[in-house]
Amino acid sequence: MMKPIILTGDRPTGKLHIGHYVGSLKNRVLLQEQNQYDMYVFLADQQALTDHAKESEKIKDSIGQVALDYLAVGLNPEQSTIFIQSQIPELAELTMYYMNLVSLARLERNPTVKTEIAQKGFGESIPTGFLVYPISQAADITAFKANLVPVGTDQKPMIEQTREIVRSFNRTYQRDVLVEPEGIYPENDAAGRLPGLDGNAKMSKSLNNGIFLSDDADTVRKKVMSMYTDPDHIRVEDPGKIEGNMVFHYLDVFGRKEDRATIEEMKAHYQSGGLGDVKTKRYLLEILDRELSPIRERRLEYAKDMAEVFRMLEKGSQKAREKAAQTLDEVKEAMGIRYF
Amino acid sequence: MMKPIILTGDRPTGKLHIGHYVGSLKNRVLLQEQNQYDMYVFLADQQALTDHAKESEKIKDSIGQVALDYLAVGLNPEQSTIFIQSQIPELAELTMYYMNLVSLARLERNPTVKTEIAQKGFGESIPTGFLVYPISQAADITAFKANLVPVGTDQKPMIEQTREIVRSFNRTYQRDVLVEPEGIYPENDAAGRLPGLDGNAKMSKSLNNGIFLSDDADTVRKKVMSMYTDPDHIRVEDPGKIEGNMVFHYLDVFGRKEDRATIEEMKAHYQSGGLGDVKTKRYLLEILDRELSPIRERRLEYAKDMAEVFRMLEKGSQKAREKAAQTLDEVKEAMGIRYF
Repeated sequence: MMKPIILTGDRPTGKLHIGHYVGSLKNRVLLQEQNQYDMYVFLADQQALTDHAKESEKIKDSIGQVALDYLAVGLNPEQSTIFIQSQIPELAELTMYYMNLVSLARLERNPTVKTEIAQKGFGESIPTGFLVYPISQAADITAFKANLVPVGTDQKPMIEQTREIVRSFNRTYQRDVLVEPEGIYPENDAAGRLPGLDGNAKMSKSLNNGIFLSDDADTVRKKVMSMYTDPDHIRVEDPGKIEGNMVFHYLDVFGRKEDRATIEEMKAHYQSGGLGDVKTKRYLLEILDRELSPIRERRLEYAKDMAEVFRMLEKGSQKAREKAAQTLDEVKEAMGIRYF
Repeated sequence: MMKPIILTGDRPTGKLHIGHYVGSLKNRVLLQEQNQYDMYVFLADQQALTDHAKESEKIKDSIGQVALDYLAVGLNPEQSTIFIQSQIPELAELTMYYMNLVSLARLERNPTVKTEIAQKGFGESIPTGFLVYPISQAADITAFKANLVPVGTDQKPMIEQTREIVRSFNRTYQRDVLVEPEGIYPENDAAGRLPGLDGNAKMSKSLNNGIFLSDDADTVRKKVMSMYTDPDHIRVEDPGKIEGNMVFHYLDVFGRKEDRATIEEMKAHYQSGGLGDVKTKRYLLEILDRELSPIRERRLEYAKDMAEVFRMLEKGSQKAREKAAQTLDEVKEAMGIRYF
């Protein structure tokens, strides 16, 4: 029996941070280790170009960095197919054919794209590629006949767009060629989105409020020591607040079962007064370090041979391409445009 | 020295008619015989799909028919590269990259696309692929680094869009990779657009007012005999009108130098009365037959082996693909996204 197919990926626009780690990477490794899925993980460089066309020269470096992050957290190219989007020309071809099945009005109604367009401040100059990217994403998903796509709740409209294209294609060409994917959404969205060190809802490179998987121990220590806690908690003996205190938020996210009792004890102590921020931060650092130091060590090891990392990506891309080429063949056969 | 590169083509949405012949095919053969150009002629099946997505199964037949028309008029695969658009995946890839350099607003301002959208009555459902086709056309033109693109005057905005993309790409990525094409426009547009047998400004399959290169002699005879002349020219002895009289219009278009005197004589006779439509039509038939019968014979000959016609297209597509792949390589190199 064929295993269900999972497709996930990231835009290579910089190194990944611990928000990516708890929000998706960790879960991918779990799924990989369950050995019940056929998993494809890809670096969406063409998608990154839809709003970074002018910074294309940074993409190669980002690809290497994100690939290191993948390997470091435990994604294993022997178990999961790791590939680069632009290495699969079939995805561009599928996008061309799907574009004829989606109206411009439908694209313009996509809530995710609408929000992103507002955020990015394109003004009157929305790049056509950006508007079209939900169709390109449908090509990514359907090329591998993915059954399951783990995404944030904000990506629901993208999955819906893909499902519509699948139904429209299969109906128009009267063949069951494409597979309707299901989104896998986080149980609650808060769990999926780690706030920044400064308390900002979003952890990001541009806000300079993140801990990266590539940060060394000293950098992590400095970052943790500068975290946003309770601005009214001036003296150690003062009672402090837990809500909105990033140290306790992170402890809740990164603490394991066996840490729960200690964390609850600290919370009570902090709230009644007498527990200083330096202590809570040192404890968080310990917990983070337990999680991050093996990742960091593996990352340093892999980083010694970037040529090998790219060879791994090349191999993964070749494997992915075979699957995508097969789907494109079926798509063209269904449309009656396989001529030779 | 490298010969200037010409790119031309047709959407394979049916057989070609004598309007295509005098409007472009004849000129292509002339250009080919001058032996001063490197000519690419392509069947734009992906472009045809942008507004015929649901009739894709007819495209293969149309490709065969148009290829026969090409061979019949004298396009020679040994001299010109004849290929099928969808066989060159590099074109879809280039389209993806160019889409990031063109704003949606810019596409929506394209006068040719605006007119076509109104004509086709898409209503609120403009297929995204249709709106995007000027970008796809830029990919076709630039992939072959075409210097010259023979088109109708109505296609001027398409060439302008391509030129903009070329400038934008070369400026953004600071390399002179892409070549700005020049349009070659007919000296006067009337010469480029043969009216239908019924006097309608457009000859087309759907209006059933055309003579096709594939029509047999008897069909051509019947069609000429039914042509629109002067509705007030009832009796032979009545004076008749030349203006708007399709028979004289066609005589002007298809008559050769040596026919001019006879044609002028007939015009005078017709206008003063005493010359019947049957006689003028018989003369036109003679002139048309002189042009069409060798084409028709060659077409019948080639049609005997359609497998060979498709082999020719496959070979041409392979050759075209090498050129497009080289350009794509340079494009990716300029963008810094050649990873391996």
